[in-house]
Amino acid sequence: MSFEAKLAELGITLPLAPKPVATYIPAVRAGDLLFLSGTGPFKDGAIVYAGKLGKDLTVEQGYEAARLTLLNALAMVRQELGTLDRVTRVVRLTGHVASADGFTQQPAVINGASDLLVQIFGEAGRHARLALGAAVLPLNMAIELELILQVH
Amino acid sequence: MSFEAKLAELGITLPLAPKPVATYIPAVRAGDLLFLSGTGPFKDGAIVYAGKLGKDLTVEQGYEAARLTLLNALAMVRQELGTLDRVTRVVRLTGHVASADGFTQQPAVINGASDLLVQIFGEAGRHARLALGAAVLPLNMAIELELILQVH
Amino acid sequence: MSFEAKLAELGITLPLAPKPVATYIPAVRAGDLLFLSGTGPFKDGAIVYAGKLGKDLTVEQGYEAARLTLLNALAMVRQELGTLDRVTRVVRLTGHVASADGFTQQPAVINGASDLLVQIFGEAGRHARLALGAAVLPLNMAIELELILQVH
Repeated sequence: MSFEAKLAELGITLPLAPKPVATYIPAVRAGDLLFLSGTGPFKDGAIVYAGKLGKDLTVEQGYEAARLTLLNALAMVRQELGTLDRVTRVVRLTGHVASADGFTQQPAVINGASDLLVQIFGEAGRHARLALGAAVLPLNMAIELELILQVH
Repeated sequence: MSFEAKLAELGITLPLAPKPVATYIPAVRAGDLLFLSGTGPFKDGAIVYAGKLGKDLTVEQGYEAARLTLLNALAMVRQELGTLDRVTRVVRLTGHVASADGFTQQPAVINGASDLLVQIFGEAGRHARLALGAAVLPLNMAIELELILQVH
Repeated sequence: MSFEAKLAELGITLPLAPKPVATYIPAVRAGDLLFLSGTGPFKDGAIVYAGKLGKDLTVEQGYEAARLTLLNALAMVRQELGTLDRVTRVVRLTGHVASADGFTQQPAVINGASDLLVQIFGEAGRHARLALGAAVLPLNMAIELELILQVH
């Protein structure tokens, strides 16, 4: 089954790819690697999950925020490649979690993105990963994700 | 116009490449990708912009700090390759901004580096980007940048 | 001398590779690049160095934590490749240091990993590097390391 078909089967509609607000672009390809810009939990151009885990948001909300952020990242991939079916492999995901002091469950939050990658891409979606705590993120986003993909 | 000629036209003189203070090196090439070490707003070996955005520095000063940091990064590229003209593409820029709690304008700060990349490299300078807030950076630098370039 | 032989000469036994606690995997290879997941100062499945530099741990303890974290990362490399001797080059090390406000000696801490890379891999171990301060890291780890290697 193609990744696009899997997405449809899961009932997922990707959002519009968020527009960069500066002189950078959503993705750059070098050889067969696609490097994505960081993105966040946007919906219709607005941040849906703001603030810090451990203070403003529960782990469950953080999980949903990571899932939504991944959908934005995939929208950027589709915009760049035309279709998700040109993804060969998800190489690495880095997840930055805006964290109040003492919050240490970043992995459980970033699972919202990791789980969805495997649901959509299967074995090709199994990725290397970093989960990190951030003092504060741009625009007060709760989550910022960065992806490196292998594409054809 | 070559990138070196563009640099001269812009009236920019690159600083001396900052020396790593440990057992790492400024840049490593793997295939046609050049991975740079992190660097900061150095001038003549000293940090020019110290402290945190949102407390010690204005966004305008942060923008200048990001621009200066990029010049240091480009000095490292020229030292490694001999000339900026061997840059094929700027692939990804990651900008870490030392941020006081509540400061969320990291993108406006990192634009100081992004804008200059496009001024110098034109279309080849359009890059994927992450802007991140950091609680604190090495040597109390206000900015730390990391670059991945495609080179020939 | 092979890297494995060098490891033995240094009297180093790698720990068991830490198990990811979610739907990600320890390492993904794309072409000749190997991207590792982030890891920390684990021993027998438990975090040995917890808390923040500048508050809970000295620079010397941080150095040891970075060294131990690197051993875990190398265990992941060996698990993935069968042997460290398939490493062509250490490309880039990123070191995240959980840091109390005002702690700015992240480079001295990450040297615990950088020094060991050069001891084991010699010239092939000389890497590009970022040292970063983090407000808080997953599981309250003091250190999180991420590696990109060139392999054959």
